[in-house]
Amino acid sequence: MTAAKLNIVPFVSVDHMMQLVLQIGVERALTEMASYIEEDFQRWELFDKTPRVASHSHDGVIELMPTSDGTLYGFKYVNGHPKNMRSGLQTVTAFGVLADVGSGYPMLLTEMTLLTALRTAATSAVAAKYLAPENPKTMAIIGNGAQAEFQALAFSALMGVETVQLYDIDPAASQKCRYNLAGTGLEIKMCASGQEAVEGADIITTVTADKQYATILTDNMVGAGVHINAVGGDCPGKTELHKDILLRSDIFVEYTPQTRIEGEIQQLDESHPVTELWQVMTGQVQGRKSPEQITLFDSVGFAIEDFSALRYIRDKLAGTGLYEELDLLADPDEPRDLFGMLLRKQQQMADGQ
Amino acid sequence: MTAAKLNIVPFVSVDHMMQLVLQIGVERALTEMASYIEEDFQRWELFDKTPRVASHSHDGVIELMPTSDGTLYGFKYVNGHPKNMRSGLQTVTAFGVLADVGSGYPMLLTEMTLLTALRTAATSAVAAKYLAPENPKTMAIIGNGAQAEFQALAFSALMGVETVQLYDIDPAASQKCRYNLAGTGLEIKMCASGQEAVEGADIITTVTADKQYATILTDNMVGAGVHINAVGGDCPGKTELHKDILLRSDIFVEYTPQTRIEGEIQQLDESHPVTELWQVMTGQVQGRKSPEQITLFDSVGFAIEDFSALRYIRDKLAGTGLYEELDLLADPDEPRDLFGMLLRKQQQMADGQ
Repeated sequence: MTAAKLNIVPFVSVDHMMQLVLQIGVERALTEMASYIEEDFQRWELFDKTPRVASHSHDGVIELMPTSDGTLYGFKYVNGHPKNMRSGLQTVTAFGVLADVGSGYPMLLTEMTLLTALRTAATSAVAAKYLAPENPKTMAIIGNGAQAEFQALAFSALMGVETVQLYDIDPAASQKCRYNLAGTGLEIKMCASGQEAVEGADIITTVTADKQYATILTDNMVGAGVHINAVGGDCPGKTELHKDILLRSDIFVEYTPQTRIEGEIQQLDESHPVTELWQVMTGQVQGRKSPEQITLFDSVGFAIEDFSALRYIRDKLAGTGLYEELDLLADPDEPRDLFGMLLRKQQQMADGQ
Repeated sequence: MTAAKLNIVPFVSVDHMMQLVLQIGVERALTEMASYIEEDFQRWELFDKTPRVASHSHDGVIELMPTSDGTLYGFKYVNGHPKNMRSGLQTVTAFGVLADVGSGYPMLLTEMTLLTALRTAATSAVAAKYLAPENPKTMAIIGNGAQAEFQALAFSALMGVETVQLYDIDPAASQKCRYNLAGTGLEIKMCASGQEAVEGADIITTVTADKQYATILTDNMVGAGVHINAVGGDCPGKTELHKDILLRSDIFVEYTPQTRIEGEIQQLDESHPVTELWQVMTGQVQGRKSPEQITLFDSVGFAIEDFSALRYIRDKLAGTGLYEELDLLADPDEPRDLFGMLLRKQQQMADGQ
């Protein structure tokens, strides 16, 4: 996959990404990607970290999420526009680039809408590995949009979850989710309320999309020992959990400076203690300490997860041919002769080549 | 150019960009792009502005440069790796994206190595329009690398410069530049020193590439009334002018917070007065005040210039067919059904489609 031609950057389209993921198998892709994420979280301190660079507007946000481990550099472009759904567009679309730090040259350009869905679910499952109660069998998923099936499969593949309890304010979303998960071996329960969905659940995933302060979970719905995987809140003004739940939970985050702005904890005081997930993964801090503890992964999505996903795709892509070659980088015969490249093109055009 | 298919983003390759620019004509492209830049600088206060997001490493830097006018959003990825030239790579390569703020959807992906060369030269000429002495005929260009010819043509097209005096520590670079500019009507003088190059020049452009504190111009080389267009210094630790010249000049910058970090003025106290170019363009501050004044445009390149260049290319692209259609954005039949899209692809693959 190393391009012989210096001007070429491999590009993975949506169609190629679907083929690649299906060739690997969705559950295997989630599992393998999770191990890349775990690996990168374990070398967390090595990374160049910054809260994402957000451009907010009335209807949504466009964000750039860069990071680097000193050898590779990755960034993702991602938008979040809740109203898009009403006009047949995706709420979230994304693409990303992996580049070589030594030369600054891009090595891979890829769609990341699908890839983000996979990495978000894989990250949730990795966090649960360290935080969820032992041997969880039942998960509630509240909010049954684009992320729901990926969550179900990730928790099935990585955590052994067997039953998924679905609830959405729009029953059609839950129906879609049940339909898509048929044949995966998961037992699906359709629920008429959030309350019903969380009953008996070891893990509660909230993944709703409205850009507003919402209360998907109230305090009385959450019993002792549960792990809450709060995925849907991911920008200022967008939260899903009642503040009282946060106060009863031990809270784990990806990157504190970003989560204080975007996560559920924007409801809390700046000084409220949180633990970064990598600290648990490296053994510096204990994750779950008791069966009664409520653990909360306040997930907003961090650049390092995208970096892991980009690394994973680069590694899996080799030999598959599932990419196009983009003529993205100017490559004059002599590096300083950019203008001469233009002149030679002019000559070629005049010669009718 | 509006893609009927929601998944498609038009992509302008290096080859297509060369064809587009040659179809327009390099000098006309520079002139038209300059008017886009001027237009955007005149509505400067409307833009979302941030210093570029830089990831520095031993050998160079990778930067993201986003901005938005509230309707369109643009960003550029650009690297700067001076040592690249020694391995046959470009010091600077770039690509960029224009997106719709309302939906967050990318509208255009394009190479920007060539485009950056054009916008940098166009910006220099726009600044000179407001700052250079009247009726300039002679320009010195010190540093005859990839940017030199674009500078010469921009100042010829926009300012009426007739004579260009070239100097580079590597005579081969000046030879290349002379060769490329033959037939443009410009008189080219080859110079054996920086001192010789600046003699009689109304405008002095410095555009060298080494990542170090260099002194391309010393104080005794710069006479009264000259306009200095300092293009080469563009990151911390990289400057071209002796501090004494800065102290004798009236200094104009693009975006002060970024230039304090990256420009020539990193040599000066944080409180040293500078004027932002847009203030001159909107008539808030006078540019050149007297024939004796030394004006200095401390140019580091700002996101709004790339935004203007992206807008320009989008406008010129319509009807040319000089782009490819990239399947960059996932577009499931139902926005929430990303997983279903994957399932339908699986079915297609099973059906051997």
